[in-house]
Amino acid sequence: MANRQTQLMTEARARGTINTTKLAGIIHGGDEIVRLRREAWSRVEAATGASETSKLPVQYALASREDLYREGLQEGKAAQDDMKRYHHTFFDVFTPRYRLSNYSPFGLTTWLIKPTLEHMATQEQKKRFQNPDWNWAYAQTELGHGTFVRGLETTASFDQARDAFVIHSPTTTSSKYWPGSLAFSASHAVVMARLLIGERDHGIHAFVVQLRDADGSLMQGIELGDIGLKSSYNQNDNGYARFDHVSIPRDNMLMARSQVSKNGIYSTLAAHPKAAYSTMLVGRVGVAQSAAFQLAQATTIAIRYSVVREQGTPAFGIQSNEVPVMHYKSQQYRLLTSLANAYAIHFATRHAEEMVKDFERRQAGGDYSTMANVHVVTAGIKAWATSVGFDGAADARKACGGHGYLSMSGLPEVVDAMDALCTLEGDNIVMFQQVARHLMKIMEGNKVDPNDSMRHTCEPIYSASQNLLDSTTQKNLFKHRATNLARRAFNSLQKSQAVGKSKSDAWNEHAMLLISAAKAHFSSIVLDQFASQIDILDAGREREVLRHLQSLFALAQITSPLSPDTASFFGPGLLHESEMEVVHQQTNVLLDTLVPEAVALTDAWDFSDASLASAIGMKDGNAYERLMSWTKQLPMNVEAAERGGMLKDVWERYIQPKAKL
Amino acid sequence: MANRQTQLMTEARARGTINTTKLAGIIHGGDEIVRLRREAWSRVEAATGASETSKLPVQYALASREDLYREGLQEGKAAQDDMKRYHHTFFDVFTPRYRLSNYSPFGLTTWLIKPTLEHMATQEQKKRFQNPDWNWAYAQTELGHGTFVRGLETTASFDQARDAFVIHSPTTTSSKYWPGSLAFSASHAVVMARLLIGERDHGIHAFVVQLRDADGSLMQGIELGDIGLKSSYNQNDNGYARFDHVSIPRDNMLMARSQVSKNGIYSTLAAHPKAAYSTMLVGRVGVAQSAAFQLAQATTIAIRYSVVREQGTPAFGIQSNEVPVMHYKSQQYRLLTSLANAYAIHFATRHAEEMVKDFERRQAGGDYSTMANVHVVTAGIKAWATSVGFDGAADARKACGGHGYLSMSGLPEVVDAMDALCTLEGDNIVMFQQVARHLMKIMEGNKVDPNDSMRHTCEPIYSASQNLLDSTTQKNLFKHRATNLARRAFNSLQKSQAVGKSKSDAWNEHAMLLISAAKAHFSSIVLDQFASQIDILDAGREREVLRHLQSLFALAQITSPLSPDTASFFGPGLLHESEMEVVHQQTNVLLDTLVPEAVALTDAWDFSDASLASAIGMKDGNAYERLMSWTKQLPMNVEAAERGGMLKDVWERYIQPKAKL
Repeated sequence: MANRQTQLMTEARARGTINTTKLAGIIHGGDEIVRLRREAWSRVEAATGASETSKLPVQYALASREDLYREGLQEGKAAQDDMKRYHHTFFDVFTPRYRLSNYSPFGLTTWLIKPTLEHMATQEQKKRFQNPDWNWAYAQTELGHGTFVRGLETTASFDQARDAFVIHSPTTTSSKYWPGSLAFSASHAVVMARLLIGERDHGIHAFVVQLRDADGSLMQGIELGDIGLKSSYNQNDNGYARFDHVSIPRDNMLMARSQVSKNGIYSTLAAHPKAAYSTMLVGRVGVAQSAAFQLAQATTIAIRYSVVREQGTPAFGIQSNEVPVMHYKSQQYRLLTSLANAYAIHFATRHAEEMVKDFERRQAGGDYSTMANVHVVTAGIKAWATSVGFDGAADARKACGGHGYLSMSGLPEVVDAMDALCTLEGDNIVMFQQVARHLMKIMEGNKVDPNDSMRHTCEPIYSASQNLLDSTTQKNLFKHRATNLARRAFNSLQKSQAVGKSKSDAWNEHAMLLISAAKAHFSSIVLDQFASQIDILDAGREREVLRHLQSLFALAQITSPLSPDTASFFGPGLLHESEMEVVHQQTNVLLDTLVPEAVALTDAWDFSDASLASAIGMKDGNAYERLMSWTKQLPMNVEAAERGGMLKDVWERYIQPKAKL
Repeated sequence: MANRQTQLMTEARARGTINTTKLAGIIHGGDEIVRLRREAWSRVEAATGASETSKLPVQYALASREDLYREGLQEGKAAQDDMKRYHHTFFDVFTPRYRLSNYSPFGLTTWLIKPTLEHMATQEQKKRFQNPDWNWAYAQTELGHGTFVRGLETTASFDQARDAFVIHSPTTTSSKYWPGSLAFSASHAVVMARLLIGERDHGIHAFVVQLRDADGSLMQGIELGDIGLKSSYNQNDNGYARFDHVSIPRDNMLMARSQVSKNGIYSTLAAHPKAAYSTMLVGRVGVAQSAAFQLAQATTIAIRYSVVREQGTPAFGIQSNEVPVMHYKSQQYRLLTSLANAYAIHFATRHAEEMVKDFERRQAGGDYSTMANVHVVTAGIKAWATSVGFDGAADARKACGGHGYLSMSGLPEVVDAMDALCTLEGDNIVMFQQVARHLMKIMEGNKVDPNDSMRHTCEPIYSASQNLLDSTTQKNLFKHRATNLARRAFNSLQKSQAVGKSKSDAWNEHAMLLISAAKAHFSSIVLDQFASQIDILDAGREREVLRHLQSLFALAQITSPLSPDTASFFGPGLLHESEMEVVHQQTNVLLDTLVPEAVALTDAWDFSDASLASAIGMKDGNAYERLMSWTKQLPMNVEAAERGGMLKDVWERYIQPKAKL
């Protein structure tokens, strides 16, 4: 039924001049894929009951620790079943709600285990372990140890008499802690543990440990449990594990790279020590992709709501009617720059994905020459995309005021899920430091692959007072700025070492400069890749509008309160401070061009209403009616309504005796 | 029992040279207050069971919508009872966990209703309505209407025959939505509604509506319910209300400012139309204070954890042992700059608080001359403190890696609660625009109170190349920068109007510049006030260290990735870009001085362990043992343990049939 809000939405959508179907094809890689995706989503949403958007989504009704886990089991199983039945991989990296697949208790198997076995198991082991009946956990991190693998304490002691390894948790801090699916969902785990043969410590190796029997009961000596509520990802039973001298067959150590023989002889095979590396690379690109989609979800909800939410009258204006908040420039700026970021990240990850694929092809032939470069690009894009994504999603939440703070808006969950992305698969600060390390090598003039993606960023070619809406000008400016920051960090390192500081101390001293340089390089790389993905599109309105988004992306890096280190865009060979005014003017012109396209630009991501699970952000714009309808369906309200609209025990215990003391 | 972590904490604490007791007195306003606070907290924590920190806090065990509400009732009641019994006001603004008092279903009465009745009720009404048995809601916002009061739709129609008003919700969007305590806890509400007398609309007025009988049952024609889970503040039953022609006595309209007579004559009394204004002013200062304490909580947890968390080895270092993450400069920078922000905000709010008190004194004598200034200062400090607070808390979460993402770390809840502060009691973007409006008036040379806090910020006096560790130099730099930004915005407005744009369009066009200027002014004001609070302290190590914090605060405004618009610190009469290096060097020197004091600087806030509710951030540093102990107490684990360590129905329904298709 049409009402004020649906009418506002219809009008706003009609203002768009782009073909959203065409743009959806560009985003998703072809019209056929768009069609197949829609079908897959529809089937899964029908299976879980999510497609009935008039019904309160289950996650807002039942939100205890255990309820959320069960929701994850249900959605995860529906997605897994659909992939098997219809032979696709849409839910390999993302869940149907665009969270990373480790949001589901079934996601780890494809996400981490498949590639681990691929690279680390022998042929015989692959056959034995690739059992479709098993559900896996990847047990690496411990209570006291994160991504620094060398610090792990869990031991795997060789027991020659029994031709076995004994897996053991010697301390509290050695308890495995955090692995997804570990608490109650996994039957088996890859356990990273310190290999001990006699007195000798051979470092960290991977072992396959059966956790539970076919009927789910715990294997001898194993203690498992949940680690409780997290900011998000409560659909997964991230868990802890303690091993009390658990014996596993010797040939459960993954032996493609190193082996232990029957009589305890340890040998390393010829394989490159980083053979399993591509698992991590693929993982990080997936995280960046997920950041793009989730940021797009948050801006889609916020833009749609801003189109129908009428609030306040313009300052100094003559009209007394309230206007949609999308009227306000500050709202336009916040939401459209975040939307531009989502597009930029999405297109930039394509490049990273191709680099990883190229690396995998080379790796198969024993060529590891591009590894350092691919490592840096995936680490950097992961860190950059998730930092920017989190900030943008958190800002989108704020841009929706009170209603954005409601779980039913869908925004809190997106923000909290984005937050996780900044930490998992490599902490962002650590990732930026690894990028910086590579940059400093380049500055030192170390031998670097001539095709290295960073290399060309060290040749300044921007000259001031050019047209900032020109793609080449933008790219040159960003490169020059990034180079300046790398040089600043490099010179600081040199100076510190010149006065006698160790390389280690110098590095630590200038960590913030190094991180800043790394971020700037990825601003530049994302811009480059976004631009070149636009370059190859057919001419047309969609390309024009994407080019405007590219310009908005670039200018927002210079002006946005969310952008770090904006000062570094100014200086000799860069922008002059007097140009700031031009930047602001051009930003306003871009916003005027893009605001009419805003709804179309969100529609093009092709999010189903069910995948957004937002009372205020669905496609029809019917925000208030839906929010009120969902509100009335909340269990506490339904329950109270059955009892005359009150919670009797609450009243009698807490409210009535209020003043009696 | 001592272990590695408690030992690391003891060592870190011993490095401090300040007297934490003395500093606690400075923070809280005297040693006696510190003592009284401790006693109050201890009593309330004993009453709720929170003081047993070996036990899993209830909010991590029972986290359904209804569980959290009950937790709020329990803690809220304990705090209210303690204040009554021991005659103090410690929990008027904050809950025992430093959330705003509207976190509890009892907090609204003191927070909003007491001052509303004070300013808007007649003497007779005060007597009638200040009933200690009643629990109140303040029902202003509606589903379709936020802080723009003029847009409210709820009607109060005068019914002369019955000498009554009829309260009614004519549309879906007119449903009251969001008021705290409204769903199940409140017996009465102040309802803001449009006064209609015959055909005439007299605008929004306040009406007292009884919602429930003494036994808690709903009054005729009233529908109430909960609005479901929010990002945080789930301890309060924020609710919705629909009124179906609810009749209330005529003298339930609050009549101190305007009246409706028996025969329907509307009259306005002599009182200043903004008589109720100080409610809002006090509220905003309270929000800023809460932001300071919650940011301090987040940094306390993160710093304590960083002291005991050993992770990784320094880059290029020779040692192979892992080091506490507090060793890393990036960690030091992130956490100490946020701690400095917490101190700065806390001390700056004292000034705002005094301004409000002064305004209230004047108001009592009919003097409203300082109102505009007090309004701007409270709006600005609220927006600035909560923006900076949220960013810092979110960054502290990230600085704690995976464990910071666990609910049991206490950090997610602080971050989410801080997020709310950016929206409630005046959206930050709206607040900054109001500040900007005042700034532009000053730029226009409008007549402004000579004591106006903003006024002097328009006289640039910084000259470059001075010592940035000097307090006066810092203050001048910040003022000059703020003035530049105000002038930039002003000139842009002028130019747009010169080419024929309306004032309203020009204002909207340059909204981002105006917001930026407003933020810069509050950076400057917070620095000023922080500095002057330090100026008046007795000489001593505490003052020295606070002065270092002030310098770190100032320099971080120039360099931090979290600081907006850092470019504006550079330019003629400001910093030269070559000085950036000096800023970085001085920052590092400050960090070297402050890191040994870090634990002491968090101890000085005197947070009880129970109020932090953090497994990883308690005073003893015993992070891992406590986290593991709490984990084992999680209900899902206890339940599973009773059943052989598995969830049988989960296994049979979801895991076993995994591959069967």
